[in-house]
Amino acid sequence: MFEAAELGQKLTKAQYDAELARLRPALLEAHFALKDTKVPVIVIVSGADGAGKGEVVHRLNEWLDPRGVDTQAFWQTSDEERERPRWWRFWRSLPARGRVGILFGSWYSEPIIRRVYGEIKASKLDTEMDRVAFFEKMLADDGAVIVKLWFHLSKKAQRRRLKDLESDPKTHWRVLPSDWKHFKLYDKFTEVSERALRRTDAGHAPWHLIEAADRRFRELTAGKLLLQAIERKLRELEKAKAVSAAVPPPKPARVRTKAGITILDHVNLTQRLTDQKYEAQLEKWQSRLTRLTWAAWEKKIASVALFEGWDAAGKGSAIRRVTAAMDPRLYRIVPIAAPTDEERARHYLWRFWRHLPRAGMTTIFDRSWYGRVLVERVEGFAREDEWKRSFLEINDFEEQMAESGIVVSKFWVHISKDEQLRRFKQREEIAFKRYKITAEDWRNREQWDAYKAAINDMVAHTSTEFAPWTLVAGNDKKFARVQIVKTLCQHLEAAL
Amino acid sequence: MFEAAELGQKLTKAQYDAELARLRPALLEAHFALKDTKVPVIVIVSGADGAGKGEVVHRLNEWLDPRGVDTQAFWQTSDEERERPRWWRFWRSLPARGRVGILFGSWYSEPIIRRVYGEIKASKLDTEMDRVAFFEKMLADDGAVIVKLWFHLSKKAQRRRLKDLESDPKTHWRVLPSDWKHFKLYDKFTEVSERALRRTDAGHAPWHLIEAADRRFRELTAGKLLLQAIERKLRELEKAKAVSAAVPPPKPARVRTKAGITILDHVNLTQRLTDQKYEAQLEKWQSRLTRLTWAAWEKKIASVALFEGWDAAGKGSAIRRVTAAMDPRLYRIVPIAAPTDEERARHYLWRFWRHLPRAGMTTIFDRSWYGRVLVERVEGFAREDEWKRSFLEINDFEEQMAESGIVVSKFWVHISKDEQLRRFKQREEIAFKRYKITAEDWRNREQWDAYKAAINDMVAHTSTEFAPWTLVAGNDKKFARVQIVKTLCQHLEAAL
Repeated sequence: MFEAAELGQKLTKAQYDAELARLRPALLEAHFALKDTKVPVIVIVSGADGAGKGEVVHRLNEWLDPRGVDTQAFWQTSDEERERPRWWRFWRSLPARGRVGILFGSWYSEPIIRRVYGEIKASKLDTEMDRVAFFEKMLADDGAVIVKLWFHLSKKAQRRRLKDLESDPKTHWRVLPSDWKHFKLYDKFTEVSERALRRTDAGHAPWHLIEAADRRFRELTAGKLLLQAIERKLRELEKAKAVSAAVPPPKPARVRTKAGITILDHVNLTQRLTDQKYEAQLEKWQSRLTRLTWAAWEKKIASVALFEGWDAAGKGSAIRRVTAAMDPRLYRIVPIAAPTDEERARHYLWRFWRHLPRAGMTTIFDRSWYGRVLVERVEGFAREDEWKRSFLEINDFEEQMAESGIVVSKFWVHISKDEQLRRFKQREEIAFKRYKITAEDWRNREQWDAYKAAINDMVAHTSTEFAPWTLVAGNDKKFARVQIVKTLCQHLEAAL
Repeated sequence: MFEAAELGQKLTKAQYDAELARLRPALLEAHFALKDTKVPVIVIVSGADGAGKGEVVHRLNEWLDPRGVDTQAFWQTSDEERERPRWWRFWRSLPARGRVGILFGSWYSEPIIRRVYGEIKASKLDTEMDRVAFFEKMLADDGAVIVKLWFHLSKKAQRRRLKDLESDPKTHWRVLPSDWKHFKLYDKFTEVSERALRRTDAGHAPWHLIEAADRRFRELTAGKLLLQAIERKLRELEKAKAVSAAVPPPKPARVRTKAGITILDHVNLTQRLTDQKYEAQLEKWQSRLTRLTWAAWEKKIASVALFEGWDAAGKGSAIRRVTAAMDPRLYRIVPIAAPTDEERARHYLWRFWRHLPRAGMTTIFDRSWYGRVLVERVEGFAREDEWKRSFLEINDFEEQMAESGIVVSKFWVHISKDEQLRRFKQREEIAFKRYKITAEDWRNREQWDAYKAAINDMVAHTSTEFAPWTLVAGNDKKFARVQIVKTLCQHLEAAL
């Protein structure tokens, strides 16, 4: 594979200058056009040590409009990063739509290095690369342009380059002791990299091998590849616009479904607790939850609990019974409403990633990423291909939480349609509950069957071994609250 | 002072229920009205150990609309926090406009505890409290409502409360060993707290002493105080609206100033470098900067460099000469354009605080917080009282950086009006520079004198010992670049 980047390609200064004179204005123009789109551009700069990657990063910064570029070097991790799933640091560094993010080092570096040093097996490398492939596909599906540049040096060229850098006092600092250590592992590094690259070389995120021995050649090639990728995307967008102008796509419509029998019909809504039993059981499970959340804190085990449910199902009051048992220092509630513009400018999962808890802490999501397959599906805010692929995306997200040791609990608080009506009416009567009932609630209610079908699909697709759904029998609030607090205790106990 | 909170105030259940029935709907209504304003509400929950502060936090969360509340407990710090100025963690936790932020623990806790334990002197406590007072004034000036609640227990009540909590298995966990340790220091704690409170008891951010021995009394009082504070602000806003409807305030106008002789006239713009000298000196200072930035990284010394200057003064190309000497892992460029909505929803300094570098790293601001006293002043985007008080705010911000060991460098890149004209024309001719010149640049140019006056004021007010301005002679780009790289080296050398 890498032989294709050992051809001795180079450019004279005259060639370089001539090509650059064409490249720079074109690159700037493309960068400016990009600003008005919803497209984030992700440039991954990777490859051999001593291949001049840092200089390429400088050069791209020079050629682009600096106000539209975010350069991110992945290097040492902070404890805020180490105490969360491994991909948290990558998510937090994703560029916004309309911007170019240059990633110096990336999600490739650590798995490759660890494999080269024999810290992980080949099969683990493959698993990691599959996750990378999935991640990149997800970003590409969301509209991102992904430009992956691999700067290659032959063994001879690498030795020469490291020696040259080292002997020049001006560049001596660039050679780290780890570079020579890596050099000794050149063959292994090449083999592992090739395996990693092959497994992640997709149409929507292709690898570009760049022969790195000649500075002019490698820098100009990088610039040209970036330009091509942006221009291709801009052409695609133009074309899509022309097509949809000629044949307007059908307006997304509310889905009207007859749901039939769903998983919700198997929830036994007649389950109730007497006041007396409720008091006793709630107290029992709350004190246990108190102890368990402190124990989890000591063992640095984090939790995520998310709450979905019908309007007026009692999510809010259930959450309060949960938090009443927890020290305010140990948890955080994240209510999900309209996204901010920083959130809208990124993949829809970004806003949830940013709130993942640190070790030992709990994040409670009041509504969650499941909005994608519930309200967005039913109301037609997300296209069918979007919400359909989000099942996979969500499972991957939750699997990553579980793998990193986070205890994931997901509650659907279920009530019957009659019970909802009763509560709506009741809310309209109580002064300080009136704010809780809006015209939107009544509209949602009309879509009951469509939601039922969506909920059934949701549970079918995302109730996993690592993150199972708990369907809560909510007609009796007392029963529901105890069920929720008890379930959280059981999940924590299993993890401790 | 605290005697006023040792009166034995309590509420019967009947009194509590009756008052709560009035309080809850009113609180919710006020909270909803708040959402449509630009007002953030900051509730500080502090006071004695065992005073039920955590329960109050729970209760407020219960009474408010949970979707509009952010509860933040200040507890253990992360390395991302420890490696930045102490106030970084408080800034990052400020609620957005229209929301209520409940701070459990706050900027008061650490200084008070450290003084109680004798780790700092009384004079240091005073200094810290003055900073607190300044910070709260700044937030209040920006429209925030600040509700500071101090929950007090008499010595006897505290002992009883800790014993009660401890003997009940359900609440045993709430008593930390440090609570008893604090109890032994009760008198000292009372004395220090009183000093801290007195020094920070301002009209815009008054302290409320709450007698905490009775649960019902303390919770209801907290709720009522919060309600009063929000309602007062809402009335003020209504009144201001009525006044400005009757007498429309004058539209902020561009300031037309004759600048006269300013500090800029003392910059010797005839300074030039020959190509040969430029090459040699740039190389010399760049290699030094390379070494120094690595040394700073090893010693964990962070830097902030900000660049302001006339349009076309060459800020961008100067920044590139700086970064060319730095490893991409060590620095980050933050270009300042229009704020995002998350930024607009907070004090104008928030967006700069969030980008402060971690230990050993450098943040380069391409334009900066000085926009407040430059473009916002000249174009009338900020009211006169706003930009005038920002001199103090900015100096405090930079002083905090300097105190935490950050090396602060501020560059104004100066050129003559003629030189600017020459460059504007030149830019219009070069294809890949054309994007750099816009109608706005020509408009700004018409305001040359107003800017000159603003720059003079800016330098006069904010060139401090800990963060001096460097006025760069920019008519010769070569001279300017060397001056900048050299100055950065000198600042780093002085710090290392």
